[in-house]
Amino acid sequence: MKDETNNPQAELIVKQVLNAWKDQNKHVSTFFTKHDEASYLNEVAPGRNRAIYLLGHLIGANDGLQPLFGIGERSFPELVQIFSANPDKAIAKIPSLSELKQHWEKVTAILTRHFDTMTPSEWLERHTAVSEEDFAREPHRNKLNVLLSRTIHEGYHMGQLNLLSVKELVA
Amino acid sequence: MKDETNNPQAELIVKQVLNAWKDQNKHVSTFFTKHDEASYLNEVAPGRNRAIYLLGHLIGANDGLQPLFGIGERSFPELVQIFSANPDKAIAKIPSLSELKQHWEKVTAILTRHFDTMTPSEWLERHTAVSEEDFAREPHRNKLNVLLSRTIHEGYHMGQLNLLSVKELVA
Repeated sequence: MKDETNNPQAELIVKQVLNAWKDQNKHVSTFFTKHDEASYLNEVAPGRNRAIYLLGHLIGANDGLQPLFGIGERSFPELVQIFSANPDKAIAKIPSLSELKQHWEKVTAILTRHFDTMTPSEWLERHTAVSEEDFAREPHRNKLNVLLSRTIHEGYHMGQLNLLSVKELVA
Repeated sequence: MKDETNNPQAELIVKQVLNAWKDQNKHVSTFFTKHDEASYLNEVAPGRNRAIYLLGHLIGANDGLQPLFGIGERSFPELVQIFSANPDKAIAKIPSLSELKQHWEKVTAILTRHFDTMTPSEWLERHTAVSEEDFAREPHRNKLNVLLSRTIHEGYHMGQLNLLSVKELVA
């Protein structure tokens, strides 16, 4: 697709998708500050994932965008085994909630800084998990589509996190 | 924003957002066919919404796009009181699961037929809940942004639906 240096429609739409991702990030950040810390060790529903596991899982999903978009290596590769390759409680030793919250903010900041500079043409480039040959046939396998599905994925888990039974913090 | 009749970048991006919405619709449709009917009367987690309530809620959310986009009136205005204006169980008499499944498919079909004909310029028009004056200042309050947030909203409730404890159908 040719580089269109002035495409206000495409720019506006890209910005809207990017803002949707930023909004979901904010929901996650806010969620993990509004209850007392012990609450996040609870399961979101009986026998289901703990909230802390879902935070680690969401960090891993966003962190994976770094190699997928050719930005760099993952900042926290050790989280993959704990929070993506294995179900909750399979690995007993996991980072603390405060470590994870720091990791979450760090990954979000790295990605946001990078994403804010990307043009529509760059968003429509292939990601590193699709070959040039496949991409020629399937041009929708671009970076923007990955961001879109990561955004919905965050919403999916936010729906679950909001089911958590919590003890409200006394202000 | 001027009408750009040939804007392949914007067309591709719009199509991707529309496909994300269609994918979420498919997840909902599939979810409500794969378990035995009685399971959908269960709550997704103790004390939370029942799966059948969430289906009614999602129909209402999509159905609301008809007036919001100027397509027409809601097909099922009676669902608003039951599934959006009130919490689950506030209203005892609700449609059956099979009625709701038919309503869901009908609303999805009406919207899909309409959306498939829309151009990027049409997607970037204001929706009926924003005034011309406000829209001039806030051009992101367009139809595509509403579709995007409805898509994430579906993902949000799919995350909850997938927590439902169900009795598997014997094939």
